[in-house]
Amino acid sequence: MALLRSYVAGGWHTAADEGVPLHDAVTGEEVARVSSKGVDFAAALEYGRRVGGPALRELTFHQRAALLKALASHLREHREELYALSARTGATLGDSKFDIDGGIGVLFGYASKGKRELPNDTVYVEGGVEPLSKGGTFLGQHIATPLRGVAVQINAFNFPVWGPLEKLAPAFLAGVPSLVKPASQTAYLTARLVELIIESGILPEGSLQFVAGSVGDLLDHVTAQDLVSFTGSASTAQKLRAHPAIVRHAVRFNAEADSLNCSILGPDAVKGTLEFDLFVKQLVTEMTVKAGQKCTAIRRAFVPAELLDDVASAASERLAKVTIGNPASEGVRMGALASLEQREEVRRSLKALLSAGSVVFGDPEKVEVVDADAERGAFISPVLLKGDPERAEPHEVEAFGPVSTLLPYTSTEQVVDYAARGGGSLAGSIVSGDKEFVREVVLGAAPWHGRLLVLDADDAKESTGHGSPLPALVHGGPGRAGGGEEMGGLRGVLHHLQRTAVQGSPAVLSAVTGRWVPGAPRAEGVHPFRKSLAELKVGDSVVAGPRTVTREDVDHFAEFTGDTFYAHTDPEAAAANPLFGGIVAHGYLVVSFAAGLFVSPEPGPVLANYGLENLRFLTPVKPGDELTVTLTCKQITPRLDQDYGEVRWDADVTNAHGESVAKYDVLTLVAKS
Amino acid sequence: MALLRSYVAGGWHTAADEGVPLHDAVTGEEVARVSSKGVDFAAALEYGRRVGGPALRELTFHQRAALLKALASHLREHREELYALSARTGATLGDSKFDIDGGIGVLFGYASKGKRELPNDTVYVEGGVEPLSKGGTFLGQHIATPLRGVAVQINAFNFPVWGPLEKLAPAFLAGVPSLVKPASQTAYLTARLVELIIESGILPEGSLQFVAGSVGDLLDHVTAQDLVSFTGSASTAQKLRAHPAIVRHAVRFNAEADSLNCSILGPDAVKGTLEFDLFVKQLVTEMTVKAGQKCTAIRRAFVPAELLDDVASAASERLAKVTIGNPASEGVRMGALASLEQREEVRRSLKALLSAGSVVFGDPEKVEVVDADAERGAFISPVLLKGDPERAEPHEVEAFGPVSTLLPYTSTEQVVDYAARGGGSLAGSIVSGDKEFVREVVLGAAPWHGRLLVLDADDAKESTGHGSPLPALVHGGPGRAGGGEEMGGLRGVLHHLQRTAVQGSPAVLSAVTGRWVPGAPRAEGVHPFRKSLAELKVGDSVVAGPRTVTREDVDHFAEFTGDTFYAHTDPEAAAANPLFGGIVAHGYLVVSFAAGLFVSPEPGPVLANYGLENLRFLTPVKPGDELTVTLTCKQITPRLDQDYGEVRWDADVTNAHGESVAKYDVLTLVAKS
Repeated sequence: MALLRSYVAGGWHTAADEGVPLHDAVTGEEVARVSSKGVDFAAALEYGRRVGGPALRELTFHQRAALLKALASHLREHREELYALSARTGATLGDSKFDIDGGIGVLFGYASKGKRELPNDTVYVEGGVEPLSKGGTFLGQHIATPLRGVAVQINAFNFPVWGPLEKLAPAFLAGVPSLVKPASQTAYLTARLVELIIESGILPEGSLQFVAGSVGDLLDHVTAQDLVSFTGSASTAQKLRAHPAIVRHAVRFNAEADSLNCSILGPDAVKGTLEFDLFVKQLVTEMTVKAGQKCTAIRRAFVPAELLDDVASAASERLAKVTIGNPASEGVRMGALASLEQREEVRRSLKALLSAGSVVFGDPEKVEVVDADAERGAFISPVLLKGDPERAEPHEVEAFGPVSTLLPYTSTEQVVDYAARGGGSLAGSIVSGDKEFVREVVLGAAPWHGRLLVLDADDAKESTGHGSPLPALVHGGPGRAGGGEEMGGLRGVLHHLQRTAVQGSPAVLSAVTGRWVPGAPRAEGVHPFRKSLAELKVGDSVVAGPRTVTREDVDHFAEFTGDTFYAHTDPEAAAANPLFGGIVAHGYLVVSFAAGLFVSPEPGPVLANYGLENLRFLTPVKPGDELTVTLTCKQITPRLDQDYGEVRWDADVTNAHGESVAKYDVLTLVAKS
Repeated sequence: MALLRSYVAGGWHTAADEGVPLHDAVTGEEVARVSSKGVDFAAALEYGRRVGGPALRELTFHQRAALLKALASHLREHREELYALSARTGATLGDSKFDIDGGIGVLFGYASKGKRELPNDTVYVEGGVEPLSKGGTFLGQHIATPLRGVAVQINAFNFPVWGPLEKLAPAFLAGVPSLVKPASQTAYLTARLVELIIESGILPEGSLQFVAGSVGDLLDHVTAQDLVSFTGSASTAQKLRAHPAIVRHAVRFNAEADSLNCSILGPDAVKGTLEFDLFVKQLVTEMTVKAGQKCTAIRRAFVPAELLDDVASAASERLAKVTIGNPASEGVRMGALASLEQREEVRRSLKALLSAGSVVFGDPEKVEVVDADAERGAFISPVLLKGDPERAEPHEVEAFGPVSTLLPYTSTEQVVDYAARGGGSLAGSIVSGDKEFVREVVLGAAPWHGRLLVLDADDAKESTGHGSPLPALVHGGPGRAGGGEEMGGLRGVLHHLQRTAVQGSPAVLSAVTGRWVPGAPRAEGVHPFRKSLAELKVGDSVVAGPRTVTREDVDHFAEFTGDTFYAHTDPEAAAANPLFGGIVAHGYLVVSFAAGLFVSPEPGPVLANYGLENLRFLTPVKPGDELTVTLTCKQITPRLDQDYGEVRWDADVTNAHGESVAKYDVLTLVAKS
């Protein structure tokens, strides 16, 4: 591996100069060289918009999800190769798995979310129909469609695989092409990842581009439909946020900056409790995984004042057992920082922190290492400090390495206030078995946090830990943490879509969304249960009934089911009910009779009724009432990997006055042919 | 009315200087003077954070909604006074109603949304529980809590009442105090509005502050928990977006800028069709309401090339009938612009537009007016242009007055492209009866629009028109339109809340959200249906059963209800069903039996079962299966204005193997005592 190549505008590009060297974090040897000289950034963006976007938008959400899954499986096959390269960034095998398996996990996660929570369609319909008029001829519906630009993704050095994949997955699923720009320090690992992806041919051409080296004038060319998402330092985030092109075009800008995350030990968790041990163990883990180079790592450990010494000695004891050295060597628990520059940076920050605190464990200038040269490699000892929480430094100065500060507190209110002094964090954790304390701290700290983990005896075994962002949960935090939000399941997809309120008649909304909307035309004829997915159309419907509900029906149903609620059985008591004023039929009787009316009994394409949604009983049904049901095909979702699909039906049960007595959605599985 | 007062830090503040004069748009007379000299902006923000925020956060969403409703009713009582003042801004009575009644309508809209769609609680629980582990002891749940800062709202001159109210309503409902800063030109109307609000005493002290005059150093003092939302010109939006404090603290910034909105006539809508008339009528309305001073007004009217002349003459004919003059005079359909400066600005923009087009109707320099002096008042004639859509000017130059440009197009693809050249718009409209055309244009133009209205014969009578933002729908658009989003029902509330992913055990999530989460502790004892809202607790539950489902039950249910679907009645055919492989019980039978098991028949606090949600049949129930149901109180929502409330129950029906056969939420009404 010599000069890293970029992949832009449909081909591999080798820089026009020799590039700058990237060094092995452990040995100091040159690993590769990097440069983006000669990359035409404007052309790359235009290529993404012209080639990648249209190719993605031709696919449904389910098709894109299936490609993400295929890509995840493909990358899983090549993990070993990526682990080996990852070791050169200073990562232990555990660190590498966190990065590489974590990234692949995000792809699987989004593949699964896409299939389960998005339609097999190209338009996302958000929320319900909004009634905008009395007569029902004028309605609103929010839809979301892919932005027509490129998602420019500028990643940090610490997660060369997870970083690009966690940004690519939601963008891809949304139908927006990505342009990935990794931090140079560890770009050789991202470069290999991208080669594997491109060589696999799994993703449509143009949906992924990659720039090794500097961003050049890339950002000058972004326009209103592009997005920029950045992970890295708070200061660079600020610079990018104010970039003239981003400001001029109101470009969607998302920042995820490292922050002064905290972990809070509850006053109940004294020495000897499980929670005490969990707190200490997690603190040491967060300090040493990735040598503390995690945006989510614990920088501030808040401890009840009276427990500070106990925590300090327990943590020191654990830290003393952490073997540091060549991550390829057996028994090594913590590797090197990503570069010598990074170590200088950490030492500088440590000086500032020490002006408001003192060392509990570790020496910033000295470390014993296994199977490596402590000076040529970017090694540093874990350093645990203890500080004064009334000073600004512990809340503001971040040493982006294996560094954390113990800070005492004396009341719940105070620790909530201290937590907020970080000015906005990605993640926080509370370790306590006291639910009252937990509730107060979570609700107090929530406005300042993107994610809060509560660790206790109940979830300790299964918890994924303070430092792990998960695809189903939002990642990002307010203020200092960048004010952004990534992942969070579908939320991350929606960030790449433009939300539009569409107003029109029911027929128009049906035409636009491909879903039947109450009031839109219905087609009667062949019973729709006799139609396969290939024949069925949105709007196909059947009107069945009437059937009269008799007092005998109600009595019988009560007796048969055991549901002898007084409103169905006791005329006097029912008359006193403020909502009914007399005997009413069971809601379950109404929907059961409705099913009896609309069913088409013989074997056919409808395989099963697998559920019901949004059932509302709107008007009481009294003995003597005649029920009619109108069932209309509302939404058709063929499954990519099955010979059937889901069909959602609108059910409207009315009485002889035409009033709706019950409305609901019936969910069925229907064969494709 | 002389020097307008500000309302800050709990009191009325009169400026320390004489202020600058504000002029009657019709007569040129001085209406009031305005200045913010002496306002301590840092103190005002701190007051909002320290007094207003806590007061609001003590209230539940329902309580805040009720206050909004009371405020709306109060303001409705004082409409006449506001109309009179509004006339001095150049507004006709129709214009004033658009602004004042529109603003009051937003308050009512949010009051109603808040009551129906938000919990009677202080925490918003967003989305479902996310399973994060196999054993179910580690879960995720997104919650949203009010930001702890102030919503700084900088409004435009054209809607002095609607503007502040549409921003205040969602902020207030969210629990975030507002600081309102209107544009000076028409600030006297907003000042009176605020006086009415403050004097009413309806809103908690500190939840609304008001600054008349310039923003001074206000923005220098915003921090990570504050929000800034701006309505006005695109250029000012850019300046504010890049403000150092906003950038430094990643302050949530929302801009709603005037944009080059378009209206598109479909090729089907030839002269003589209803849609042709609707298009022309709407165009003229949008040009003349508020004298065209609407961010959502139609600036670009795209017309099939062959229909351009027809549209030009029909529109000219209508425009000729518009009487212009003193808005207080009878028969006047269009008043004055808000100021003479505004008229100069419109004339300047018209010059730029004329470099790429020609006048169809009107003279920018000359206008006949009724009961007013055309030069002392800010009057201008409606001006309809026709332009070259291949030139940049029609898509980029906005004349913020009664000005619009007709632009020809020749294909669907072309008009979608032209619509996008506005660079992002707040609103667009398509006037056509051709559903195919409508679908193609809506989906093509959606990424560039915050709102799209489709006007046709079906919705014409009830449509609220191209230019009307509605509280239930998002208002805001990408790119040129500011990249922001306001209102949109709950979306506008969520913009003021911080979303936080909380991870923990079921018991912890229950404690934090106040809702029972599967896996959290349950309490058995007195049947929970015997408990009033005052006694009932989340987690209260009853386990009932077992009951065996027999083949006779299934046969009988089929016969009784008429639901003779083969899977319930025909053993051979049922055996061939790929999902069942034999006779299964009806889903409706299962939930009916479950109700029979968990019901408590005698009269008591449970008044009714009003619905069911998220019902899923998970495992087929075969004859011989034993059913047990566990019903657990999941969420309690007392109604403020009734002597009952809503209780949501988790129902889990299991078979003898402990497998869930059906899961759903049962919705009931339960008396408070």
